[in-house]
Amino acid sequence: MGETALLSRIAALAGSGGRGHILLGPGDDCAVVRFPKNSVMLATADDMAEGTHFLNPRGDAGRLAAKLLRINLSDLAGMGAATPVCVLCSASFPADTPASWLEEFVRALSRECRLFKAPLAGGNLSRSGKFHLSMTAIGAAREADIIKRSGARPGDLLFTLGPLGEAKAGLELYYGKARHLRGAFRKTLLDAFWRPMPLLKEARVLSRLRLASALMDNSDGLYKSAGYLSQASGCGAEISLEENCVSSALSAYCRKTGADWRAYALSGGEDYGLVCAVPPAKAAALRRALPQARLAGKFTAGSGVRTGMVHAKPYEHF
Amino acid sequence: MGETALLSRIAALAGSGGRGHILLGPGDDCAVVRFPKNSVMLATADDMAEGTHFLNPRGDAGRLAAKLLRINLSDLAGMGAATPVCVLCSASFPADTPASWLEEFVRALSRECRLFKAPLAGGNLSRSGKFHLSMTAIGAAREADIIKRSGARPGDLLFTLGPLGEAKAGLELYYGKARHLRGAFRKTLLDAFWRPMPLLKEARVLSRLRLASALMDNSDGLYKSAGYLSQASGCGAEISLEENCVSSALSAYCRKTGADWRAYALSGGEDYGLVCAVPPAKAAALRRALPQARLAGKFTAGSGVRTGMVHAKPYEHF
Repeated sequence: MGETALLSRIAALAGSGGRGHILLGPGDDCAVVRFPKNSVMLATADDMAEGTHFLNPRGDAGRLAAKLLRINLSDLAGMGAATPVCVLCSASFPADTPASWLEEFVRALSRECRLFKAPLAGGNLSRSGKFHLSMTAIGAAREADIIKRSGARPGDLLFTLGPLGEAKAGLELYYGKARHLRGAFRKTLLDAFWRPMPLLKEARVLSRLRLASALMDNSDGLYKSAGYLSQASGCGAEISLEENCVSSALSAYCRKTGADWRAYALSGGEDYGLVCAVPPAKAAALRRALPQARLAGKFTAGSGVRTGMVHAKPYEHF
Repeated sequence: MGETALLSRIAALAGSGGRGHILLGPGDDCAVVRFPKNSVMLATADDMAEGTHFLNPRGDAGRLAAKLLRINLSDLAGMGAATPVCVLCSASFPADTPASWLEEFVRALSRECRLFKAPLAGGNLSRSGKFHLSMTAIGAAREADIIKRSGARPGDLLFTLGPLGEAKAGLELYYGKARHLRGAFRKTLLDAFWRPMPLLKEARVLSRLRLASALMDNSDGLYKSAGYLSQASGCGAEISLEENCVSSALSAYCRKTGADWRAYALSGGEDYGLVCAVPPAKAAALRRALPQARLAGKFTAGSGVRTGMVHAKPYEHF
């Protein structure tokens, strides 16, 4: 499949006419998009590189497409109530990549774009020695709804939404030492790795009810997320986890492997979901609005993150 | 330099406060940008991959940053009168990349961003086996100013703005068979390869004076550009070049190497600049407003691109 044929296929699958605000989709020099009124623009980019974020991609076109979109939308959720406007996808791959791979990638991406109402407006295709997938997500938000990383105050509580540690376990089950391990936890943990859920709805609740003083998505593990929030806010943080912070799937996995679930929750990385600071006076309202939120510590005076654990080796994917 | 230190450095160099419409620059989950009123959003992405678009990048951090920005802004120019709003840059590089490389890349990128008033609002850093640079440019335009690829009509004239064939010669002088060739042409041609000029001002003139019926930037060589325009417009094209279409630098280079300048102009690729369709009644106005424009053929009934040459092997960088 040549570039022209592939681009036509993308234009067809992307269904650029599907949303009224995409005035011109893939196929020209730029996408043309009507930006919503009374909103500010959110823009974020995230990459997935072969060898770093995934290994042999040959059978994984659909999984990669889904994850690429989801991790970008998760960054929109990390700002509070945000509506996806469009995404652009740049994909680089080796010359011998079969047409069926590209077809499946584009199909899965367009399916996921419809699911999250985040139309594929454009992008770029190029050759490279290894697979490299890059995406930009554009969102819209009311300025008053934006929750930055920098608003946490000493005394605020640290809450998490979404899975903790599951993606790391999923990674081990897919690529690693636990590849042959069987158990009821397997599907949950693999899904956590490949299909992280961008918590756009939960972020909307946090914004609209003014529950959180600081917010981010949890892409590098709770230990680093707490560090980013506390550093941006000029305070410290103290993490204290109870096992109800993690899913029964992760608990079961850790019982089977003998690993400490705390290490996964703190340093796992790629969990996405949300981490936020919540003033104590708003904790009850948070628990009512989002009962799935888990208390994971508090913000303190000073600086740095304390865990009272020896296992907290921060996740480094860079 | 760790990720956190590097990100701080980027935030400092990016000078996110430099333009009032960047409400929040690098450092949070998303950039927050105030989008101009009464404008539509233009969005485009372009990549540069080691092994495909450049070879050993060790000494070329600044050159790569400049080119990455310029080729993206060139896509904004390809839509007509567009104002850059911001860019996002995703850079992936090997673990052993020296801090000085990153420092120079960020420095050069921020210098170029200031030059073109296209603030760096965010992006992503990651590891990969080879260098991979990806950028998204966001622009704003009045909807009525947008010039698509699809508006050419049989009888319209084909005009070019900017260099033809120079980037290919520059590539050969930098990496290739002409590496050791000396001559007054050298600097012009190397600059054409590394520092292509996004013709934002020229595109503005085309829009505001309503001179062009179709427009695109010339990234894959004139032969393919004429093909894209004519295909999108449902017509054909006939290219006919005279040597005044190319610079004296390219002519001198071709005299020295014995190559045919026409092959460079038609199939060179990476020239950027603009290719447009101009109704005959507007040709005189075009020549007055943009005397540097060069007539390169015309659009015809039917389909396909004719050149009357045997040299027209289209450029494929994909």
